[in-house]
Amino acid sequence: MKAAILAVGSELLGTDRLDTNSLRLAAVLERHGAELVGKEVVGDDSGRIAAALGRLAGECDLVLVTGGLGPTADDLTREGAAEAFGLELALDETVLGEIEERFHSFGRAMPEVNRRQALVPAGAEVLPNRRGTAPGLRLAAGGATLFLFPGVPHELDGLVAAALEPWLAERGGGGGIETGVLKVACLPESEVEERIAPAYGEFGREAISVLARPGEIELRFRAAGTPAERRARLGSIAARLRALVGRAVFTGEAEETLESVAGALLAAGGRTLATAESCTGGLVAERLTRVAGSSGWFVGGVVAYSNELKCRLLGVAEELLAGHGAVSEPVARAMAEGARARLGADLAIAITGIAGPGGGTADKPVGTVHLALVGPGAEAEIDHRLVRLPGDRAMVRALSAQIALEMVRRRLLALGVDRSTASALAAGTAAGSGR
Amino acid sequence: MKAAILAVGSELLGTDRLDTNSLRLAAVLERHGAELVGKEVVGDDSGRIAAALGRLAGECDLVLVTGGLGPTADDLTREGAAEAFGLELALDETVLGEIEERFHSFGRAMPEVNRRQALVPAGAEVLPNRRGTAPGLRLAAGGATLFLFPGVPHELDGLVAAALEPWLAERGGGGGIETGVLKVACLPESEVEERIAPAYGEFGREAISVLARPGEIELRFRAAGTPAERRARLGSIAARLRALVGRAVFTGEAEETLESVAGALLAAGGRTLATAESCTGGLVAERLTRVAGSSGWFVGGVVAYSNELKCRLLGVAEELLAGHGAVSEPVARAMAEGARARLGADLAIAITGIAGPGGGTADKPVGTVHLALVGPGAEAEIDHRLVRLPGDRAMVRALSAQIALEMVRRRLLALGVDRSTASALAAGTAAGSGR
Repeated sequence: MKAAILAVGSELLGTDRLDTNSLRLAAVLERHGAELVGKEVVGDDSGRIAAALGRLAGECDLVLVTGGLGPTADDLTREGAAEAFGLELALDETVLGEIEERFHSFGRAMPEVNRRQALVPAGAEVLPNRRGTAPGLRLAAGGATLFLFPGVPHELDGLVAAALEPWLAERGGGGGIETGVLKVACLPESEVEERIAPAYGEFGREAISVLARPGEIELRFRAAGTPAERRARLGSIAARLRALVGRAVFTGEAEETLESVAGALLAAGGRTLATAESCTGGLVAERLTRVAGSSGWFVGGVVAYSNELKCRLLGVAEELLAGHGAVSEPVARAMAEGARARLGADLAIAITGIAGPGGGTADKPVGTVHLALVGPGAEAEIDHRLVRLPGDRAMVRALSAQIALEMVRRRLLALGVDRSTASALAAGTAAGSGR
Repeated sequence: MKAAILAVGSELLGTDRLDTNSLRLAAVLERHGAELVGKEVVGDDSGRIAAALGRLAGECDLVLVTGGLGPTADDLTREGAAEAFGLELALDETVLGEIEERFHSFGRAMPEVNRRQALVPAGAEVLPNRRGTAPGLRLAAGGATLFLFPGVPHELDGLVAAALEPWLAERGGGGGIETGVLKVACLPESEVEERIAPAYGEFGREAISVLARPGEIELRFRAAGTPAERRARLGSIAARLRALVGRAVFTGEAEETLESVAGALLAAGGRTLATAESCTGGLVAERLTRVAGSSGWFVGGVVAYSNELKCRLLGVAEELLAGHGAVSEPVARAMAEGARARLGADLAIAITGIAGPGGGTADKPVGTVHLALVGPGAEAEIDHRLVRLPGDRAMVRALSAQIALEMVRRRLLALGVDRSTASALAAGTAAGSGR
């Protein structure tokens, strides 16, 4: 089945907004084994909408249209579809009644403009929209099946689940594709590529793709066949990739993050964490506290941007700062120890570095970062890392935070903490205080 | 002049990546008065590329193509263009020499695959690419002018500046459009719309658009005519909008942020700031330290997530916590005072609230946030705000941080600090320590 996506809306031809809806539609098509051959965007112009619909219906089996179903005069998808296939547009009294009812349920009368949303091209099936006033429409015309959906993402999602997915499931015949994911922390893309090379040979190069982000790599893999076959194959690919990449794989769940996994391990191990940040300026604490329930394992942190605060809040000795400079191993260690003692946590992670653009020297260029992790045991258990990071200020900060979180995760793994006991927390369902 | 954009690449039909290049091209077209009538994406398929190019050249005066100029077998834009217009593809020895030279300058021999990048359709002009191996191409065919650009954003930018902009400038005849921007903090969209309504009447509704983000609204406005006319009109619109919206406008520079403006005011006023965060978990400190040179005016912060740390690090009295709860005005005030005293800053901002999803009560539902700002003078100068914020955990945190930064900015304005003396810092060019 060949499919195309058409997004309607002049705002999508401006300088700010992209057709992000097409990503969710592409995922649904992929899951059901339909081939997406093209995407287009046109403005609010019924002639252009009609031309695109007529052409795409001739080229494809399925055309998914988003946007242009609103109540105002520049919402012209209905008109474009009618024009493309020579169909009459008529007011559907049932649809009109439902729209009026929706307004009444909010205690309001339906504005006159909304009558337009009850116009239906002859022969089209109305797809009820429980999340908004614009119903979706499905029609068979020009050799294809066309779905017209509202552009509001929340409304689109509802209609895709209620109307498009069942339609595709009926026609897909189990030939769809399912995807799996593994997330890898703090390895360069080239090294991940090298490690997983054998899997390309075993499963096919096109079955696995590598998505690189700063400090994080996502391995996506695909499997076709019946649902049972797909699950089995995804399981085999995931197991093989985990074996090849090793402990740098931190999750196989798309919605998990490095901070949620580190948090889940802290929770599972019954340990608490504190942070002492200089160049990251609070980014590590901020990421940790994105996780719902983080108050269960994160006690707090200090952003000690000035040398004075490193002494005052973390008890770093002035001699250390004077002798080694703020960006040094001894200061990183002292910051971690100070944070653990003064904030009263089992573990503490400290980051001090030069994020740039200024502040670099020949000895310590921009991107020089020292990290230290202390706890839960004695001083001997301090992990220290010195890294030279590439990129601008934002990149140095992002990579530093990523390494810090990975150090926490690795320490908990080294302590033998079992991730499996932590799945509830990791999924964000823990009954934390919410702060 | 009617223009269309075609992005080539199978990865742009997947579930992860959008054609972001089209936004920069749309901006260039807008500036030069060309009308963008449609955008399309096709995969790495020379037949589909050819079909799209032939059709778009018939419909438009200008077709901008990105992607598919790489060295590998699936880079097929050159082939698609040749096929669309029946042009011969021939190896250009000059181009080949330049590509080889580029590899030599890195001390490497040119891989054989890169020979493909020297293929040029008959009659096309080669556009040198100083940032990569794939040259751009310009050809007149099928009734239009076509530009073929590499898809790598950095390379595309270089070629747009060197080849497309001059070409458009020659043909645009000064009829382009220029845009201005004003950013507004912490006002609801509906209120901004109400305030600027008179400007719609005076300058035309289509001249001004409103882009809403959490806690921030961007007003974008456009002016046509000669460069001098545009500048004058943009100035008039900006002045009128500033008068209508008032002090909530925090900048007229696209690259400035609320944190960079607050920082510039701190620098201009010679004041320093500390933060004491609970529900925002370090987000305010993190945003402040994104600004290069922030070590000049930001001393540091405390993320006091637990009650114990609010006492220990900020000196909040236990009785206050017991009597009023952590999310209360007295605790917010005590956190701010404690941060100012213990971190040694002129001003301190404190945030304590319930970000959710858990932790809400009937009295203090999720979204309840207390903020307090203290300094530079006596205790009487504390600003306190209690807000009830909508949205999920991420939204409550983002809005809280935005309000905190706006409170800092307003306090400095109230102190009579003059923004104009701070422009160097605000533009991020200050010679800060870089930490």
